[in-house]
Amino acid sequence: MYKIAVIPGDGIGKEVMEATLHVLEAVDVEFDYTFADAGDEYMEKTGVALPQETVEIVKASQACLFGAAGESAADVIVKLRQELELYANIRPAKSYPGTKCLFDNVDFVIVRENTEGLYIGLEEESEEGATALRVTTRKAAERICKYAFEYAKKTGRKKVTAVHKANVLKKTDGLFRETFYQVAKDYPDMELDDRYVDATAMFFITRPEMFDVIVTTNLFGDILSDEAAGLAGGLGLAPSANVGEKIGLFEPVHGSAPDHAGKGTANPSAMILSAVLMLDYLEENDAARKLENALVEVLAEGKAVTGDLGGNASTMEMAVEVRKKL
Amino acid sequence: MYKIAVIPGDGIGKEVMEATLHVLEAVDVEFDYTFADAGDEYMEKTGVALPQETVEIVKASQACLFGAAGESAADVIVKLRQELELYANIRPAKSYPGTKCLFDNVDFVIVRENTEGLYIGLEEESEEGATALRVTTRKAAERICKYAFEYAKKTGRKKVTAVHKANVLKKTDGLFRETFYQVAKDYPDMELDDRYVDATAMFFITRPEMFDVIVTTNLFGDILSDEAAGLAGGLGLAPSANVGEKIGLFEPVHGSAPDHAGKGTANPSAMILSAVLMLDYLEENDAARKLENALVEVLAEGKAVTGDLGGNASTMEMAVEVRKKL
Ligand SMILES: CC(C)[C@H](C(=O)O)[C@@H](O)C(=O)O
Ligand SMILES: CC(C)[C@H](C(=O)O)[C@@H](O)C(=O)O
Repeated sequence: MYKIAVIPGDGIGKEVMEATLHVLEAVDVEFDYTFADAGDEYMEKTGVALPQETVEIVKASQACLFGAAGESAADVIVKLRQELELYANIRPAKSYPGTKCLFDNVDFVIVRENTEGLYIGLEEESEEGATALRVTTRKAAERICKYAFEYAKKTGRKKVTAVHKANVLKKTDGLFRETFYQVAKDYPDMELDDRYVDATAMFFITRPEMFDVIVTTNLFGDILSDEAAGLAGGLGLAPSANVGEKIGLFEPVHGSAPDHAGKGTANPSAMILSAVLMLDYLEENDAARKLENALVEVLAEGKAVTGDLGGNASTMEMAVEVRKKL
Repeated sequence: MYKIAVIPGDGIGKEVMEATLHVLEAVDVEFDYTFADAGDEYMEKTGVALPQETVEIVKASQACLFGAAGESAADVIVKLRQELELYANIRPAKSYPGTKCLFDNVDFVIVRENTEGLYIGLEEESEEGATALRVTTRKAAERICKYAFEYAKKTGRKKVTAVHKANVLKKTDGLFRETFYQVAKDYPDMELDDRYVDATAMFFITRPEMFDVIVTTNLFGDILSDEAAGLAGGLGLAPSANVGEKIGLFEPVHGSAPDHAGKGTANPSAMILSAVLMLDYLEENDAARKLENALVEVLAEGKAVTGDLGGNASTMEMAVEVRKKL
């Protein structure tokens, strides 16, 4: 019995969460859910986007399923990542059958530093304009690089690429790159290289097969993972894991999509795949594979799928179909 | 007779420059070239990557053709952009026939702020790591947004999109977004919207037709323009203009490509298209269209083209062919 915090949040976050919980009922693992509030809707009622109570509920859990937050997303998710020290954001990009992915051979994972960089929130206004501080600590660089190598080892991947802009950001990204090569010494069997972030954005499109595991700083990881989601079938299929020493928080890369909310037409795949990542995190790997395969079957059949995948199933109809395959 | 500074630089920069100058001889416009040094090779000899003499030569010219610099690129090109206040970096992304572009309907232009942001060079080291300052001044935001709207008007484009990360960078990018909407008031006929940089990186792939003119900050422009080059046939075809009040500097988006240098196999198209941008900048629009069309013909025929375009012509053979069409 795992203690799981559930934060449906706003908009389609609530819809894909409901669908995912429905599917998880048929998985052979027991969960004890505690629901918690966060996001725009909660803020309208109370004036806060992320109540301390929610932080406490997540802290008292082994993992958290997170749907999406609206305009307040930055105040909710960035704060959760920092307060809970969820320092590694893992974002797989994988082409699934039956999806409109640009390439059918995309299969890499972005490991994004999740606590600092430009997300540290140190901005100042002045007469002339404003400044923001980009922070790279040796400690955070070390732990994220180590995480990336350990992750590569555990998942049988062969290569780790550091992505940075050290030609311009000589000190901050210079430190990141230097730390990467230092950490790499403990993994002599792993292939490794490093690339500029701009070149990486291009190579994702022209030579995606050259990437396996990517480790990068916070904002570069943000941008590149959305690009990667675009390559591999769109945001409707992109899951993510925010992982720290004690807790994991699992969320789709997509947001609350206010334009699509309330219609029951959102693709639940990214949230279901986030639950797959959660199962792997809890070391329920058999259940994880079963759930992933059930989803892949439904995608490949292409019948009971949502509009973005070329079908006309509702969010819940697609979930019901996935559950049937379990 | 236009006074033009020519900086071939390093690696394939020299090769594509030679090819472009060969083509320009057949264009019906007269140029007075002054050659100038910069880059790795010059640094090896002298210890400086960008001599003051080169800066002065560019300052005394109406425009500059720039090939590429190697490892020292940041010290050369970023410094030139800042010293000469080349505040607007214009990067068109356009699918040309006969190229391996992912979509054949890509046609948008990125207008990148070229003097500040994280490129300001304010980095500091500390016990724990390092910091970099990201600077947005109202003045620079205003002039780049104004430039983007004027550019859109002049080139008959219909829409300007501001790209930022104002949900996280509330003050710096908040100011950028706010300034964008203020400047927009002077252009009531222009369509406009704004997008997050991460979402933009995805939409380039899933819905490139939604973009027309994009205006964004320095580093986001760097990343997005390489991604856009990937969409539209690769770096071999991506030109750029760095424009200020008095001078324009024209360069391919690609670098010096040390792995490919010395073989005479580099694609000269990006440099030739940069010369097209220079001709437009000098208001030699007829000559610009003729040169662009000559290149497009050679691309469409697909015979005398370089390896990256599926042919086996050398850099110079392709240039000779382009010149023949003029
Ligand atoms: C909502 C936003 C603050 C967030 C981020 O920038 O990290 C999102 O884009 C993501 O990638 O999870
Ligand atoms: C070489 C580098 C400093 C430069 C930049 O980051 O601006 C390049 O990538 C570019 O886009 O012109």
